[in-house]
Amino acid sequence: MSVFITGVAGFIGCNLASELLAKGRIVAGFDNLCRGSRVNLTEISSHPNFSFEVVDLSDIDAYRHALHDLHRRQPVTEVWHLAANSDIPAGTADPHIDYRDTFMTTFNTLVLMRELGIPVIAFASSSAIYGDHGDRPLNEDSGPLLPISNYGAMKLAAEAAISAACESHLEAAYLFRFPNVIGVPATHGVIQDFMRKLRETPGNLDVLGDGSQQKGYLHVTDLVDAMLFIRETATDKLSYFNIGASDKGVTVRYIAETVRAHVAPEATLSFGQGNKGWVGDVPKFTYLTEKLSLLGWNPRLGSEQAIRRAVKEIARQEFGS
Amino acid sequence: MSVFITGVAGFIGCNLASELLAKGRIVAGFDNLCRGSRVNLTEISSHPNFSFEVVDLSDIDAYRHALHDLHRRQPVTEVWHLAANSDIPAGTADPHIDYRDTFMTTFNTLVLMRELGIPVIAFASSSAIYGDHGDRPLNEDSGPLLPISNYGAMKLAAEAAISAACESHLEAAYLFRFPNVIGVPATHGVIQDFMRKLRETPGNLDVLGDGSQQKGYLHVTDLVDAMLFIRETATDKLSYFNIGASDKGVTVRYIAETVRAHVAPEATLSFGQGNKGWVGDVPKFTYLTEKLSLLGWNPRLGSEQAIRRAVKEIARQEFGS
Repeated sequence: MSVFITGVAGFIGCNLASELLAKGRIVAGFDNLCRGSRVNLTEISSHPNFSFEVVDLSDIDAYRHALHDLHRRQPVTEVWHLAANSDIPAGTADPHIDYRDTFMTTFNTLVLMRELGIPVIAFASSSAIYGDHGDRPLNEDSGPLLPISNYGAMKLAAEAAISAACESHLEAAYLFRFPNVIGVPATHGVIQDFMRKLRETPGNLDVLGDGSQQKGYLHVTDLVDAMLFIRETATDKLSYFNIGASDKGVTVRYIAETVRAHVAPEATLSFGQGNKGWVGDVPKFTYLTEKLSLLGWNPRLGSEQAIRRAVKEIARQEFGS
Repeated sequence: MSVFITGVAGFIGCNLASELLAKGRIVAGFDNLCRGSRVNLTEISSHPNFSFEVVDLSDIDAYRHALHDLHRRQPVTEVWHLAANSDIPAGTADPHIDYRDTFMTTFNTLVLMRELGIPVIAFASSSAIYGDHGDRPLNEDSGPLLPISNYGAMKLAAEAAISAACESHLEAAYLFRFPNVIGVPATHGVIQDFMRKLRETPGNLDVLGDGSQQKGYLHVTDLVDAMLFIRETATDKLSYFNIGASDKGVTVRYIAETVRAHVAPEATLSFGQGNKGWVGDVPKFTYLTEKLSLLGWNPRLGSEQAIRRAVKEIARQEFGS
């Protein structure tokens, strides 16, 4: 009886694995180590209940071979499917990236779950499935769903495939629509970008856009806690939840200032124009999390607290200080 | 300056091609002839403004070669992407079918449109993207979108990919969410099924389910008219419309009785139990078409009229009478 995590060597995967191991579960994970890293597994790699393999989940033959083997050794009872592209601009430049790493990994996971009779999937979806709705507050039942990035499009495509699989071979599915998640080990994202820019040019930080973009941020510890809470508590066959900060979020300017205060107090901040950072970026976003709150879960850290904590953690990762 | 139709040898593709040719457009079409048929192109195949090639659009190399060639001969200014799996139960038995024939054909079409700088796509989406919402009336902005068939899932995935492409390389996209469309050349569907069953066992017609399933039906002539109207009239960069009957639809029982009256008046009707015909079938469906009505289009035929006309047409196709 084991839990299987895809993308286990990624930012969220390794945090989830640690937490499941701490709860006494047997955990196996695959990762292609394209965006994830073995370093992220250092703390858990010697845990007796943890096993890891390098597998490219977009390659159905390799994936089938490895998962059938794993399932023979220790029957898998649920899949936490986190493997995905996490780089939105990369997916705009080349749509194959999200297609392969987000959509095909999901499609293949469902094919193998059907073959092996694994009944439960938990999936890392995204607020990006909604697209750009301006100031309109978005709950889980809001439509239309018109994503503006291939990242969001392939997350929605994956949700759709899981939804259909619920009608045929799955017993239960959990769709977690993530907001911006921060913490360590950071692999990408605005805080890390700012720190790396400041390392290149210590006196100045160029910010894409005018700094007014506002988004909610959730710390990864809260995210993992929320996912496990939903997995234990929700009772629908197909449960889908926004997970996020319950506040209105923080601006890019706030993040830039927090990073500067922590790692380069003397630097000047230079802002660009407009409130879009890149093609496919949703400038402002009001994300309702009442459904999850009604289920009984609320984040411990608000967006500002999450940013401040993550800035400290990522500074330690990037600068060792 | 030509219009390119994928799935041109299918039920809707050949009707669309005829209509565009009648309007004086230059039309080129590809089809893999898997569900479509050359017979459907008999009337237009000798038209000087029409050309046709057998191409499997899920094979990107073959598709690229053929579309680049076509575009060199006669620049393509818009794509009408109708190629798709149309057999819902087949896609439930094997998810690869909708993945390959609906999703990959769309993904590949977008890749090639980007390569060639073709700016406009019109896409045959489906009411199946919504999933099962019981009696709740569904407009274009209704959520959540949780399809219950791979057919609906891969239509939604295709919509999502097109939506994201609108943010990068497309100038305009039109998503047409089809209801049940009837008429000739029929390739599948309840009317044809009933007629073929009656040919096998002339005295009796077994109906899946209790006959209470109710859906709206649109005649293919109305569908083509609606699509062309939206293409000419809608002004959003991404236009998405439900197309359907404006009435509440008809029951399976009504269809069975109409078929019987036309082709086998002596036959008895035997109904099953429950109101679902097969896994992935949405039993009842209230589909709002006010958005299209406000744009200025309404169907000429209601669901009952459409069924009666299609029964006559399909009887002629199936029985030559």
